[in-house]
Amino acid sequence: MAAVLIREATEGDCGEIMKMIRELAEFEKLLDQVKISEGALKTDGFSENPFYHCLVAEIPPEHRVPEGPTVVAYGLYYFIYSTWTGRNVYLEDIYVMPKYRGQGIGSKIIKKVAEIALDRGCSQFRLAVLDWNKSAMDFYKTRGAKDLTVAEGWRFFRFDDEAMTELARK
Amino acid sequence: MAAVLIREATEGDCGEIMKMIRELAEFEKLLDQVKISEGALKTDGFSENPFYHCLVAEIPPEHRVPEGPTVVAYGLYYFIYSTWTGRNVYLEDIYVMPKYRGQGIGSKIIKKVAEIALDRGCSQFRLAVLDWNKSAMDFYKTRGAKDLTVAEGWRFFRFDDEAMTELARK
Repeated sequence: MAAVLIREATEGDCGEIMKMIRELAEFEKLLDQVKISEGALKTDGFSENPFYHCLVAEIPPEHRVPEGPTVVAYGLYYFIYSTWTGRNVYLEDIYVMPKYRGQGIGSKIIKKVAEIALDRGCSQFRLAVLDWNKSAMDFYKTRGAKDLTVAEGWRFFRFDDEAMTELARK
Repeated sequence: MAAVLIREATEGDCGEIMKMIRELAEFEKLLDQVKISEGALKTDGFSENPFYHCLVAEIPPEHRVPEGPTVVAYGLYYFIYSTWTGRNVYLEDIYVMPKYRGQGIGSKIIKKVAEIALDRGCSQFRLAVLDWNKSAMDFYKTRGAKDLTVAEGWRFFRFDDEAMTELARK
């Protein structure tokens, strides 16, 4: 079992992150919704006042397989705001490449996000899970997360590009 | 029907916003979850790199009722990030005081959020609705929003303070 290093992503990781974003969307059966580019990830995450933050799991040089990946997982998050509890963190994506699962890499990423969030004065950690992804739901529930869609009835709504443009024009 | 002015909130509005946050949480039957203070709202929204942005609806002086409110609605939002579509906006709260409903104030706030989001290069507009709040769900659906909990199975998960602290400590 290879030791991995959880570190903040750099601009140079965006190609690898982009590849994993597509793998995750494919697993979620929603690959057709991926419209983002590596260039946008670079601009939006690595300028002043970035729109997101990202952690990656890196395989140390001595454990790398020839031609194998250097970065094998990512967790993309940002800070949000609750009018009930103030500063919160939101984990938009977490993904571990299939060959590297079962080593606790996902847990390490989540732990690091929680540490960063506490440092920034956050009191809650939110995320979204697909209802057919039982293993993900169990993973979060086991660690103390509440399913607010079941407990309180919260539903996700989204205006896509065209509907949002229409809202602005009315 | 009084004309209202939709404008960006200032630090001086935080007392009125705090009052409306409590009114909204009471309507949502979740008032016990409100832990925030006016001081936190001021610090988090009106420092450098604010955690949120807020619009308010103000009654112009000539239409104000003696002893009545100046600010009668708010919409609190922030920028988030989708790994599929990049920059997105999230409307955390929208609230119009009961006496001022039916005048299109909510629609004006949503329109303004959509305009700001387009200006910032956002392609999607997300929000959450409680499943028993049929009038809110109809309001958004009529305007073109998709219910992603129904369409794709997305569920809200949250680690509260204690569970998040436990995650960080493990």
